[in-house]
Amino acid sequence: MAQYTTDEPVYALATPFSPSALAVIRASGDNVLSLFQPYFTGHLDKSGQVVHGFIRGLDGRMIDEVIVIKYAKGHGYTSEEAFEIMCHGSLPVIRSISQLLETAGLRKALRGEFTYRAFMHGRMDLTEAEAVEEIVKAKTAKGSGEALSRLTGSIHNEAEKAKDQILNILASLEVQLDYGEDEIPEDWIFPDDEIASIVHRLKEIASTYSAVRRWTEGAVVVIAGRTNAGKSSLYNALLKENRAIVSPVEGTTRDYIETEAEIEGIPVRLFDTAGLRNTDESVEAEGIRRTEALMDKADLIIYVVDPLSDDTAPESDNILPVYSRLDIAAHNGLSFSSVTGEGLNAVIDAIETRLSNGVELKEGVPSIDSERQRDKLIEAAEALEEAGKNRAFGYDVIALYLQSALSALGELTGEVTGEDVLERLFSSFCLGK
Amino acid sequence: MAQYTTDEPVYALATPFSPSALAVIRASGDNVLSLFQPYFTGHLDKSGQVVHGFIRGLDGRMIDEVIVIKYAKGHGYTSEEAFEIMCHGSLPVIRSISQLLETAGLRKALRGEFTYRAFMHGRMDLTEAEAVEEIVKAKTAKGSGEALSRLTGSIHNEAEKAKDQILNILASLEVQLDYGEDEIPEDWIFPDDEIASIVHRLKEIASTYSAVRRWTEGAVVVIAGRTNAGKSSLYNALLKENRAIVSPVEGTTRDYIETEAEIEGIPVRLFDTAGLRNTDESVEAEGIRRTEALMDKADLIIYVVDPLSDDTAPESDNILPVYSRLDIAAHNGLSFSSVTGEGLNAVIDAIETRLSNGVELKEGVPSIDSERQRDKLIEAAEALEEAGKNRAFGYDVIALYLQSALSALGELTGEVTGEDVLERLFSSFCLGK
Repeated sequence: MAQYTTDEPVYALATPFSPSALAVIRASGDNVLSLFQPYFTGHLDKSGQVVHGFIRGLDGRMIDEVIVIKYAKGHGYTSEEAFEIMCHGSLPVIRSISQLLETAGLRKALRGEFTYRAFMHGRMDLTEAEAVEEIVKAKTAKGSGEALSRLTGSIHNEAEKAKDQILNILASLEVQLDYGEDEIPEDWIFPDDEIASIVHRLKEIASTYSAVRRWTEGAVVVIAGRTNAGKSSLYNALLKENRAIVSPVEGTTRDYIETEAEIEGIPVRLFDTAGLRNTDESVEAEGIRRTEALMDKADLIIYVVDPLSDDTAPESDNILPVYSRLDIAAHNGLSFSSVTGEGLNAVIDAIETRLSNGVELKEGVPSIDSERQRDKLIEAAEALEEAGKNRAFGYDVIALYLQSALSALGELTGEVTGEDVLERLFSSFCLGK
Repeated sequence: MAQYTTDEPVYALATPFSPSALAVIRASGDNVLSLFQPYFTGHLDKSGQVVHGFIRGLDGRMIDEVIVIKYAKGHGYTSEEAFEIMCHGSLPVIRSISQLLETAGLRKALRGEFTYRAFMHGRMDLTEAEAVEEIVKAKTAKGSGEALSRLTGSIHNEAEKAKDQILNILASLEVQLDYGEDEIPEDWIFPDDEIASIVHRLKEIASTYSAVRRWTEGAVVVIAGRTNAGKSSLYNALLKENRAIVSPVEGTTRDYIETEAEIEGIPVRLFDTAGLRNTDESVEAEGIRRTEALMDKADLIIYVVDPLSDDTAPESDNILPVYSRLDIAAHNGLSFSSVTGEGLNAVIDAIETRLSNGVELKEGVPSIDSERQRDKLIEAAEALEEAGKNRAFGYDVIALYLQSALSALGELTGEVTGEDVLERLFSSFCLGK
């Protein structure tokens, strides 16, 4: 199996493999330019300068007319000698150039290998590297904007600041608790406030994780209820109100309709289980299984109840019961009429409130979008708390906990991280990154 | 409705709208750089130089970290002032940058509008412009290679050469047939050989069209026959022999299996109608309709006959009958056994021969991939032939036909072409080209 390296020349398609106006193929590694130059009619002279020319195959035939950008060592994304080919977005052209690069001695890059190299060469820390992929995978502008601020060091800076503070605390304790003495002096001062302040900040950042997941992964919203309860009118009203529909997903072989929408900046996968007749005995086992699976993973279930029926909404934290037929039967609960449209806006408002609940971020608190980062922040905060609890045991024990906090922060930024962690992390990236 | 122009600044995404490592957004038009510069932290100074920086939205928030390439007037694809943004291949980033460019006063480019502008500014003739899209849409390296030679002027040069020859003929006739004289002199020489040579060349190029279609659009090959005749073994054997399988296409809701493959350089859409039981009376009407539609558009139908049955292959130019069960029943026709594998290679060879029939191109004859180009070449050739047939009517009539040939060649290269033809042509391009 191929492994992440920094000493082999690699290449990858950085744009989707689909016919389009342009495609970008990038390459990086020692001597990558001299490996490629024999097949390119242009002269790759200056770093960062676009060069027009033709790529010629092994048989001498021209493969494509292209633009190539050379990056001298230290100047490009990976910090290695590198180049980028902008060719026509033609599948056979992309295939031919890839084959040519293989023949020239370049290996196909693993997922995230360019960013891995940028990280290994110190171009970015691990939180910045993770932000690259988080930008690509973001579904809303808010999500990509937060990821961009991580890419430019928001978490890196917080980690560095916390480490500085911890080192200062260590120094002040060392002065007070002389290593040679057995007894702890009576008048020593433990920096409770300083530690509490760091712990608070680290936990504050860690707590942004769940809100950020909402933006990036999106919320699953399911409209459920009996047949003819009024689910589809509500579904259509919701989509009509929220015009930022990304794409309707074809539901040919499924028993529900799925549409991607954006509600209050949160990407939403909205499911209408209109085709289902849960209460009908003739419903297939497979259909029931699918709806149940859908409801299990729902962030919010809007359960539509016909007030004239004997139906009641199941009780659960993620269920919002709404009552239809407001035009003919008033109900104490949140109600609407699909005939008159009355109450629909109130229902939509309630849904938006439920969805945006907990996704607000405080100004000035950088957010994270990585479970790994959250775990390291919590680990550092807990080690700091332990230091306080164990103050009676003297400098050595306190220092052990503070060092363990420093080490968690070092893992957060990737200063000290095992190769296995790195491989797992980068292999979840998209190709060409 | 928006119209193709050359005086408005336009932009377009040149890569697919799908999450990926990189995306390229291009913009072109008068003052396009000064419209964009306020939102970019980098300084766009030198043409053809990559500039690193951040794109800032209207609200001051950073949208993405990007690379921008400036093209001064006369230096880029369109010959207009232009720039290209390489941003993260993130959907919200692409959306935000697009919105920003709209706000900055750029219009979203129509399909092919960049190439339209390159054509209008004389950067390429019409055959070269068409080649751009032909490269993108090509399915095999052979197809894209031929399109590249058109992009670099193979058809343009032929048209210019033919026009020169026709102009020489016109001049020689004008000298011989004095405009003032009514009678044609007895000793005048009509350039039969020269005209025949041009006609031959133009028709030779025109005739490449059908072969090229095979490469670019691909051949539809259908394996048909009764249930259990041995169709699926043949299908699998064909796919196994031709390993350049592009992608299996999911056949969920269809009654046949489709796979894209490449046979002898020709892209092939191979259909196995295995799921069909044409002879079974219980088959649905829809299923029968689909198979028939498929066979209607097939370039080649491989009809598998079980020699022990009473089935016979229908007779038609596009049907290749093959006989299965060679291990238990010999047959005079092309036979194979899916049990022993005997004869399979012969069947595959026969299929390859049938498919590659007529797709050979003569060395030195540039090929075309445009019905429009073929029609103009034929029109020019026929006008030249008419000139010969009408020689008895004197200079004016001969000149009329020769002028008409010149005009067809002028339309071929786009020197004289109506705006409606251009709009129709460029609007079939992909976005961002």
